[in-house]
Amino acid sequence: MKENKYDDEIFFDRYSQMSRSVNGLKGAGEWHALRSMFPAFKGKRVLDLGCGFGWHCLYAVEHGAVEVMGIDISEKMIKGAKQRNSSPLIQYKCVAIEDFEFKPSCYDVVISLLVFHYLESFKNICEKVYTCLSEGGAFVFSVEHPVFTAYGNQDWYYDEKGNSLHWPVDNYFTEGHRKAVFLGEEVTKYHKTLTTYMNDLIKSGFEVTGLVEPEPDDVLLTSVPGMKDELRRPMMLLISAVKK
Amino acid sequence: MKENKYDDEIFFDRYSQMSRSVNGLKGAGEWHALRSMFPAFKGKRVLDLGCGFGWHCLYAVEHGAVEVMGIDISEKMIKGAKQRNSSPLIQYKCVAIEDFEFKPSCYDVVISLLVFHYLESFKNICEKVYTCLSEGGAFVFSVEHPVFTAYGNQDWYYDEKGNSLHWPVDNYFTEGHRKAVFLGEEVTKYHKTLTTYMNDLIKSGFEVTGLVEPEPDDVLLTSVPGMKDELRRPMMLLISAVKK
Repeated sequence: MKENKYDDEIFFDRYSQMSRSVNGLKGAGEWHALRSMFPAFKGKRVLDLGCGFGWHCLYAVEHGAVEVMGIDISEKMIKGAKQRNSSPLIQYKCVAIEDFEFKPSCYDVVISLLVFHYLESFKNICEKVYTCLSEGGAFVFSVEHPVFTAYGNQDWYYDEKGNSLHWPVDNYFTEGHRKAVFLGEEVTKYHKTLTTYMNDLIKSGFEVTGLVEPEPDDVLLTSVPGMKDELRRPMMLLISAVKK
Repeated sequence: MKENKYDDEIFFDRYSQMSRSVNGLKGAGEWHALRSMFPAFKGKRVLDLGCGFGWHCLYAVEHGAVEVMGIDISEKMIKGAKQRNSSPLIQYKCVAIEDFEFKPSCYDVVISLLVFHYLESFKNICEKVYTCLSEGGAFVFSVEHPVFTAYGNQDWYYDEKGNSLHWPVDNYFTEGHRKAVFLGEEVTKYHKTLTTYMNDLIKSGFEVTGLVEPEPDDVLLTSVPGMKDELRRPMMLLISAVKK
């Protein structure tokens, strides 16, 4: 199923008000970790799968990328990207990842941030990304962590007074469809195990060069209420790999 | 701290009665997954860190290893290994991993099964194993999964009727000391994040070639009561790597 929640009016408005939408990269808690996993962009051809407002596309151009393609299923997102992060070196295209044509050896870097948990198959993605990358090309992506997606509702377990006791994990090895609540709306996500992420990459021919479960940096920890809870369970998984 | 719980009389007796102690490799739920991650042992020099009763040492010899060193901190374990799994090609040595001398390029394969969660530092291990391996040598190990070790007590969260509701995760990014109950005894374990396991390996110079969170096979699922709960959360992490 190709879900396009981001063209839902209410959902889009709420997403547009998130820190990462208003403040861009520096508004995203994982940015300090993600940035260090990016390869050098100088002279590179870059593809961003699910580019959203295009913050990472512009970052790539600002760091020397010669050609960037940002694709997203949402028209509202692509419109927002063109308004916020345009450049003559960036082409934004409204198309689902499933419908995008991955031509052989067209890119040197493929990035995808917080998108793959919306897609059922990771294996398909790996194979397509492998095809479209040049030899030695880099693949860097973030997803919601399997610990975060396993149970389904993506919330803490509370006592009767409303205190968050711990993060619940269940049905870990049952991959697939989950109904989560995000920004007050029901959203379909697909839980995958860590085993799936790692072995789909390795079996597709990638070498995994980094894996980070980001923690908020000290500034966020002290300035944003509730941020300390982010140290209680992993929420995201960042992986970098290269085409062997 | 070099803990040696396995020389505790009561603990050792209980451990000796576990399926994996009585039945060896086929009594271990993860064996089918682990076996497929082992390299070919033919002609190889093998080191087993925390060899226990020596089941994997004998397996290596039966599959062509020319020389196997099994070390364990527990005298009872080493004695048991000599009784159960002796071979002229295996040398069993009672020594803590921390005190073992890792000479350069002495081994072609290093294995360690369910041991590293008893040690505080994984980085030290990685560096030592890297040193003692020959070029292209294999490092295969299993540990208790970070999801399993994070909370600490290593038990389900139950409702008032005693039903297991889910597996609790908390304090994930607080690595270090945990007090768990295993075989009715309090045991000290050291929680580490997945990030630590992966990046200590990569930064030490290893290429990660496989990562599996094993699920019980169909035989165990249908024959052992309660085994279906093992599908609800990951309990172990198996990783294979090679020295680059």
